Amino acid sequence: MSNEYLDAARPVVEAALDAVMPCPEDPPQRLHHAMHHAVRAGGKRLRPILTLACGEAVAGAAAARQACPPVMAAIELLHTYTLVHDDLPTMDDDDLRRGQPSCHIAFDEATAILTGDALLTLALGTAATCTAAAVRCLAEAAGSHGVVGGQQDDLDAERGRLPDADRAALVERIHRRKTAALIRAACELGAIAVGADPNQRQALAEYGEALGLAFQITDDILDVTATSAELGKTAGKDAARGKLTYVSVHGLDAARQRAEECINAAHKALTDWGPQADHLRAIATAVAQRRH
Amino acid sequence: MSNEYLDAARPVVEAALDAVMPCPEDPPQRLHHAMHHAVRAGGKRLRPILTLACGEAVAGAAAARQACPPVMAAIELLHTYTLVHDDLPTMDDDDLRRGQPSCHIAFDEATAILTGDALLTLALGTAATCTAAAVRCLAEAAGSHGVVGGQQDDLDAERGRLPDADRAALVERIHRRKTAALIRAACELGAIAVGADPNQRQALAEYGEALGLAFQITDDILDVTATSAELGKTAGKDAARGKLTYVSVHGLDAARQRAEECINAAHKALTDWGPQADHLRAIATAVAQRRH
Repeated sequence: MSNEYLDAARPVVEAALDAVMPCPEDPPQRLHHAMHHAVRAGGKRLRPILTLACGEAVAGAAAARQACPPVMAAIELLHTYTLVHDDLPTMDDDDLRRGQPSCHIAFDEATAILTGDALLTLALGTAATCTAAAVRCLAEAAGSHGVVGGQQDDLDAERGRLPDADRAALVERIHRRKTAALIRAACELGAIAVGADPNQRQALAEYGEALGLAFQITDDILDVTATSAELGKTAGKDAARGKLTYVSVHGLDAARQRAEECINAAHKALTDWGPQADHLRAIATAVAQRRH
Repeated sequence: MSNEYLDAARPVVEAALDAVMPCPEDPPQRLHHAMHHAVRAGGKRLRPILTLACGEAVAGAAAARQACPPVMAAIELLHTYTLVHDDLPTMDDDDLRRGQPSCHIAFDEATAILTGDALLTLALGTAATCTAAAVRCLAEAAGSHGVVGGQQDDLDAERGRLPDADRAALVERIHRRKTAALIRAACELGAIAVGADPNQRQALAEYGEALGLAFQITDDILDVTATSAELGKTAGKDAARGKLTYVSVHGLDAARQRAEECINAAHKALTDWGPQADHLRAIATAVAQRRH
């Protein structure tokens, strides 16, 4: 997934992370090295770039680059913690992440648990250098009614603990909580950081929710159509585990159609916005076309 | 460990927790039930009671009971998350906590990891309903230079990964980070919630740090002198694992002497305070005399 804006914004993300990550040589070194391993493996940096682009759409590039870095770091640290914990053997048991050994493989399970805990704590503490509203937004998206709840539902479904569930409703709930909630929060954090008004924040939240759903549905599609080398993580794994995905519930064609509808909804949320939202429109198009 | 004030304040803690805990019947129910299992098992509630007592010492009982409940809930939720994760098989591997099955025994490991994640997120999100300063205080105490760092050092020491470490310096660092940092933060949060001035906050921080060290050293002492039934957790476990404790490094007599010195330091931090700090003085005395 790439476009010019994503490539140009990535160094801003790295600088924002550099500003808040602990020195790896501070004790405990093993923990700090593991935190750097997880954060430095890279990835698309989609969420913090969305934060910046939303800040720019509201207040222009100069104001956004001034105000957004702490919340950009916060959203990426929070996302990284979820990957570290989700990869654990007792969770999704994935040895490969962003083309690198997962944290519990490169280090050990206990260190990986603590690394996730430290990244989550740093994420919310860093959001607090912006405002309490930023912390509340991020914590709500990340908590038991958001990302953590989505992962629990996902595991419970996979392990047969929700036998009577409506599978279509359940996969919708999991995708909204596990993925869309955080992408939506990424957008809202950009709005909060530059002091957007409630209508602006609401429009960006709708954009983020729709984009997040599209992102997760294309993820489900790529799991069955792309290779591990393309993805930088194990391909076909969801299907192999019988995981509940949009494709497994609705089929590939319906998934492609729904992803397109979500991308359209993301564009529609920006109808009243001028050219300052063009980067957000370009990101929606890049998500629609993504191959990894 | 008990005194009149502790017993009177516990219902205030329970009400503060009730106000922020998710409904157990909300989905995902398994996660929400596990969160309630961990939080409802009880325990001494020392940290949030210290928060309240510090708020009272600065601003009086009425103001503190008005302002402190969110940060009281935050500190107890954060403490509870550390217990849930520390008990995991790959960490301290403890099946019993507060006289109940640990979270991963009552549920399963993945659910216990997610329960800790959700409690940590809720803790910091709840602190954000007070002020951003409260979140920063709690996140700093909880992060890689605080509680999480202390647990990593503790595990690294136990697993022989720090062979060249100065054991006396290391046990001091672990105790300060793993225990004293959070008890200190509990005190500072009470000060922050009622708008204490910097000198007041600093004095309460010093009280909390000294009390926290005393608390952990008496914990080390009780591990070798008390029974599991008295403790509500497995006694003798630290010694059996060859864990680095104040007693294993310095011996029982030196540990008792150091605990007493720390209690004296806690009292000394309150020298300039009037009778409004009497509850804090009584808590310090109760910690010195604790039997579980």
